[in-house]
Amino acid sequence: MPYFDAASSAPLHPVARQALLAALDEGWADPARLYREGRRARMLLDAAREAAAEAVGCRPDELVFTPSGTRALHTGVSGALAGRRRVGAGLVVSAVEHSAVLHAAAAHRAGGGEVTEVGVDRTGAVPAGAFAEALREGTALACLQSANHEVGTVQPVAEAAAACRSAGVPLLVDAAQSLAWGPVDGPWSLLAASAHKWGGPSGVGLLAVRKGVRFAPQGPGDERESGRSPGFENIPAVVAAAASLRAVRAEAAAEGARLRALVDRIRERVPVLVPDVEVVGDPVRRLPHVVTFSCLYVDGETLLHELDRSSFSVSSGSSCTSSTLTPSHVLRAMGVLSEGNVRVSLPPGTSPADVDRFLEVLPGVVSAARERLGAPAHGPAAERAAPAGADGEEAALVVDALGRRCPIPVIELARVIGDVPVGGTVTVLSDDAAARLDIPAWCAMRDQEYVGERAAEAGGVAYTVRRRV
Amino acid sequence: MPYFDAASSAPLHPVARQALLAALDEGWADPARLYREGRRARMLLDAAREAAAEAVGCRPDELVFTPSGTRALHTGVSGALAGRRRVGAGLVVSAVEHSAVLHAAAAHRAGGGEVTEVGVDRTGAVPAGAFAEALREGTALACLQSANHEVGTVQPVAEAAAACRSAGVPLLVDAAQSLAWGPVDGPWSLLAASAHKWGGPSGVGLLAVRKGVRFAPQGPGDERESGRSPGFENIPAVVAAAASLRAVRAEAAAEGARLRALVDRIRERVPVLVPDVEVVGDPVRRLPHVVTFSCLYVDGETLLHELDRSSFSVSSGSSCTSSTLTPSHVLRAMGVLSEGNVRVSLPPGTSPADVDRFLEVLPGVVSAARERLGAPAHGPAAERAAPAGADGEEAALVVDALGRRCPIPVIELARVIGDVPVGGTVTVLSDDAAARLDIPAWCAMRDQEYVGERAAEAGGVAYTVRRRV
Repeated sequence: MPYFDAASSAPLHPVARQALLAALDEGWADPARLYREGRRARMLLDAAREAAAEAVGCRPDELVFTPSGTRALHTGVSGALAGRRRVGAGLVVSAVEHSAVLHAAAAHRAGGGEVTEVGVDRTGAVPAGAFAEALREGTALACLQSANHEVGTVQPVAEAAAACRSAGVPLLVDAAQSLAWGPVDGPWSLLAASAHKWGGPSGVGLLAVRKGVRFAPQGPGDERESGRSPGFENIPAVVAAAASLRAVRAEAAAEGARLRALVDRIRERVPVLVPDVEVVGDPVRRLPHVVTFSCLYVDGETLLHELDRSSFSVSSGSSCTSSTLTPSHVLRAMGVLSEGNVRVSLPPGTSPADVDRFLEVLPGVVSAARERLGAPAHGPAAERAAPAGADGEEAALVVDALGRRCPIPVIELARVIGDVPVGGTVTVLSDDAAARLDIPAWCAMRDQEYVGERAAEAGGVAYTVRRRV
Repeated sequence: MPYFDAASSAPLHPVARQALLAALDEGWADPARLYREGRRARMLLDAAREAAAEAVGCRPDELVFTPSGTRALHTGVSGALAGRRRVGAGLVVSAVEHSAVLHAAAAHRAGGGEVTEVGVDRTGAVPAGAFAEALREGTALACLQSANHEVGTVQPVAEAAAACRSAGVPLLVDAAQSLAWGPVDGPWSLLAASAHKWGGPSGVGLLAVRKGVRFAPQGPGDERESGRSPGFENIPAVVAAAASLRAVRAEAAAEGARLRALVDRIRERVPVLVPDVEVVGDPVRRLPHVVTFSCLYVDGETLLHELDRSSFSVSSGSSCTSSTLTPSHVLRAMGVLSEGNVRVSLPPGTSPADVDRFLEVLPGVVSAARERLGAPAHGPAAERAAPAGADGEEAALVVDALGRRCPIPVIELARVIGDVPVGGTVTVLSDDAAARLDIPAWCAMRDQEYVGERAAEAGGVAYTVRRRV
């Protein structure tokens, strides 16, 4: 049963399981107590902190354990902002950060703070120069992920950290996706991560705050975890988290190379096997285990469902699979196709045979889904007889796709483009959020000209496309 | 190795261990995902929520899991206060709540809110009438524990809840210490608890918010746990928490009766076996498994250390065992002796033989500690020859105990009381926080008159005692 969604949550590493079992019997007592059970718990906690700090590349007293990566990010952002309140209320984030960072940024904005979002290129990479330029007087904190969780693109963290250091701004790095593969380079100030992403147990995040970084934890606190993470310590889970981080690091070089080759195979073969596919994310500067692609004329939910029936577990950034009805903010920021989006993230130990079987299964799944939706066949638009009275702009065609969800508006567009004379336009009316991303993306893939959008009289948005080929 | 500190953290219940192991293999995936691993995780989470809600006495959709009892309380207090911001900023708490509630109250006060603390009687009970009187126009929330964590006294939650309902104020009940024994009676609005207190794993708290209670979660959130507890769900631990709550409930009546009898034995025998002891807390309206007593002329840390050497793990609310150098806020609010404080809280399964051995060991531990400190022997003050020139107030004796820590100021007082003529006074100068509690408590135990305190010229506080017997 191949599970290909390690970037959401990795299966428990055997070392994590072992360590958790051992620590259940030794680590349940209060480490603040002086009796033997408390001292034993304290020793386990201290040892876990040392091991985790070594893997992160910080001092043990700079690292605290939190109940999740999300809470580590929330605590890190609010504490660092409050610690530098006198400098200003500016927060710089990339547009493709994990939602935990963006939620913390939204809370900061709601409290009167100022948030600057730095955009990305089409590979999902944050340009180091643009990030540096966003740092201003009054910037209290900057946040940058080490690598993107949806498309795998590695971010220029070392350059960003150097720019932050020059500007005197602390940099918080969300290392959730990359910590299994190695420490984060550069003079970062804060770092957050999540154990269940590296095969550790749920319930453990970590937050490192370098000595010298001004930090004022927000909300009620207590004496635990240096006053930065209130509540009884979850020592068995913390022990398992530290042990498994050490274990995955020992395997990182070999396993990283192996998964990188498997992902390369997917990156190469998918566009060959499946027509009308866009593989997104940086092909080289990327996580070893993540690859994301989008398929024209098909909805992500159907793909996920059919792949699940074939026993492959993957995730999708398509709007049709999310409760918000909008495509993932990462795909939106990249400006790439969002329909039929599939993220494959391979857990350690994935066999080449499973990847081969995935490549065997995928084409049939996509073509069956397209067939059901009546998607047009692959290839350049076949010029049909020009419709009566057609003479360029005058006879512009309008497709009403109001009320239709992704990928229908794009399918309708593709269906009628053959009816448009070269040089003529077609306008698609749509109130589906994905259309804003997918119609321009379709134009780029099909070599047609995307003219632009305007509010439609009938409600929704009118997207206009000029036939070029 | 008898562990007598269940009120801090209970050893993992066998059912919790079993359930955790099973759920490690089934519950590691993201329950928000649509593939089989995600669906399986979601089913486990839903089942755990139903079981926990049944034990709490609420609907499953009223209950969310949090990373700890502390976080449940912080979230509950801030969310309920924010939800009723229009009503006012008044928060009513008892003086003996868990520090997590008091920390949340302090944060509320720091943010401009108003906090009313309701005092307790000498047993640690909150008078229901006083609690009701504290509810005013502008009271947004009231908090009351179901039972006290340090002395075991059960609080009048049903009466408080009824008063709150009449006043239109939601009541948040901290049920951390009592949930293992049964649901909380009365029309409460919010309830918080912590799994590791009932033998569940670390890393799980729960927060119930009744339908109709205005609640606005504070800080950045996400889509998990109804937007009330952000971060990846810790499903294996949640499953273990729910399973063990059900298991301890099945055993609660029999085990409660058994432990109640063992605690009764301690309550009866300790004052007989150890001179100069005060057993505190309500002898009847109390948790089945908790008993607390204080021993004159000895410091809590030494007692803990010596009991640990005899393999008994207990805790203490004495100042000498805390990092703050002040006695526990519970003992202070009760106005009882704080020196030589010992809390015994029996985990399920405690054997009568272990309790008997504790009662065998304790007297020797206390008397050895007293001997080392040069404490006076038990009994009424032996009248010595009146000091030269002594005639009442004029010849008032002054004992300089500045710079000396608990229990030295009280030992010094007891040493010199025999030199004071009946009707004469002795003044103790002390800068130790425990003296404020322990000198009046000593007077009550010794039937001497506590005159009062004033600031001393030499710094610290001058406590004056009049010899009565």
